[in-house]
Amino acid sequence: MSILTVFDILGTIAFAISGALAAMNKRLDIFGVLILAFVTAVGGGTLRDVLIGYTPVAWMRNYTTITVILGSYLVVLFAKPYLKHLKKPLFYFDSFGLGAFTITGIAQGMAFGLHPGLCVALGTMTGAFGGVIRDILINEIPHVFRKEIYATACIIGGVVFFLLLSLNVERHYAEVAAAVAVVVVRIVAIRYHLYLPKIYDRDQV
Amino acid sequence: MSILTVFDILGTIAFAISGALAAMNKRLDIFGVLILAFVTAVGGGTLRDVLIGYTPVAWMRNYTTITVILGSYLVVLFAKPYLKHLKKPLFYFDSFGLGAFTITGIAQGMAFGLHPGLCVALGTMTGAFGGVIRDILINEIPHVFRKEIYATACIIGGVVFFLLLSLNVERHYAEVAAAVAVVVVRIVAIRYHLYLPKIYDRDQV
Amino acid sequence: MSILTVFDILGTIAFAISGALAAMNKRLDIFGVLILAFVTAVGGGTLRDVLIGYTPVAWMRNYTTITVILGSYLVVLFAKPYLKHLKKPLFYFDSFGLGAFTITGIAQGMAFGLHPGLCVALGTMTGAFGGVIRDILINEIPHVFRKEIYATACIIGGVVFFLLLSLNVERHYAEVAAAVAVVVVRIVAIRYHLYLPKIYDRDQV
Repeated sequence: MSILTVFDILGTIAFAISGALAAMNKRLDIFGVLILAFVTAVGGGTLRDVLIGYTPVAWMRNYTTITVILGSYLVVLFAKPYLKHLKKPLFYFDSFGLGAFTITGIAQGMAFGLHPGLCVALGTMTGAFGGVIRDILINEIPHVFRKEIYATACIIGGVVFFLLLSLNVERHYAEVAAAVAVVVVRIVAIRYHLYLPKIYDRDQV
Repeated sequence: MSILTVFDILGTIAFAISGALAAMNKRLDIFGVLILAFVTAVGGGTLRDVLIGYTPVAWMRNYTTITVILGSYLVVLFAKPYLKHLKKPLFYFDSFGLGAFTITGIAQGMAFGLHPGLCVALGTMTGAFGGVIRDILINEIPHVFRKEIYATACIIGGVVFFLLLSLNVERHYAEVAAAVAVVVVRIVAIRYHLYLPKIYDRDQV
Repeated sequence: MSILTVFDILGTIAFAISGALAAMNKRLDIFGVLILAFVTAVGGGTLRDVLIGYTPVAWMRNYTTITVILGSYLVVLFAKPYLKHLKKPLFYFDSFGLGAFTITGIAQGMAFGLHPGLCVALGTMTGAFGGVIRDILINEIPHVFRKEIYATACIIGGVVFFLLLSLNVERHYAEVAAAVAVVVVRIVAIRYHLYLPKIYDRDQV
């Protein structure tokens, strides 16, 4: 089992748990919690697949993903009080997942022969847009558009990947290095409270 | 005309009216009301078709659906005050529609050779996600994630369907029985005020 | 370069700027601003392509669109204060874009052999639904469902187009005339404060 597969599974767990917890905080019922867990984990990849025309979308072909999400859902349902103590590991799982999802999205774009810029966009979508859909469903402005370095980590990872490829690094190594780059950027950003700038003034155009 | 077709048409009427009324209550203009009627009636099936790759999506191939929606829209525009007196029939139409839409979604999944679990998911999506899209468009947390037994009825109907198939019940009978199961679960749940549990505490993780 | 291409580019600029400004007014960071610029410009066409099954969707095949959006984004980032003085030209660009996008949507529907009514629906979607997705992402009820003659202009343009075709007007002339009709309806509606009616009362059904 490749390290990227491990990252992918850890990320799916972290994303599903993040969706389930967001749903619980909004007082959704246990069906709503299930859907939010699901959508947060597979939403980004699903959007990607729909836009490029890879249907049925990936999660319908991958029972591992579905099983991991259902398992994470049950853990949240029955062990929510203990999750408080797992904030740190869950943050790391989330970062690993962000790296793995970015690579999956890029690989999917390459399989469809798309321009590297589009591949990076698809990688970012895969990593960051499950959370966007989660936030829309609970009626909030998506977190990733306002706070924290998140999508930016995906973009940097994507650039690292294509840079390494252009330097004739073997593809598998470039993938692992790019995923690690995503993880490192994400962790450094959180550690040092780095944010993207905002531009606005009082007078709205 | 099969009884499922009748259920489907009654459901389309009820769903379109529910979308139109939700739009009016939010002070949308008559274009917004039209779009909400449309999206509530066909949104679930459209999401299903897009995810499995059945395009152009079903409502573009079925003028009956479009005609029924436009008719329901005109009824709401010109006879809204009378709809107050039709709450009960509209509730039953909605339940019949939920049953029919669930079966349509399951059948679509089977036609694409998907796993029974995925077929049940697609049936639930077809029945319940038009309302989800309606609620997102009027800026509310989807009702089906918070209140009432709704999606749960679809899931139970789907399980009934595959149980009957596994007992060698002929497919058409299994479909009608499953649709009836959805309707019965929905009506019983409303009658006895049954809800799905919620799990939360004051301390957010 | 056809006049419709010019309209299309001006519209893409106006739509991207409208998305970017909406994002800034909601205090999104510069990644959020980029995504909103993008989604507002290509969201309608993307929805259209996904529903009819034209994938990868149009903007993945058209680097002009992507370049124009990125350019508009940079202009907003670095020259936002000056945009105040450009309200009027941006309104005209937006109207030209609405016309061009409507025609593109109709043409796409015709290429898929769809019924004229569906083609008009796709044209309206292409013109008006980028703004719908923009508003959902910033957590507002879509503007086009509540205010101003906007989608209605697309519908009227679509009807003009098929009327002219049925009178044996050459297709290219019909397209330009229909786009101009959209622009004129839009400008007249704003000039004379025309709105679609709303229907509601205090007693909600």
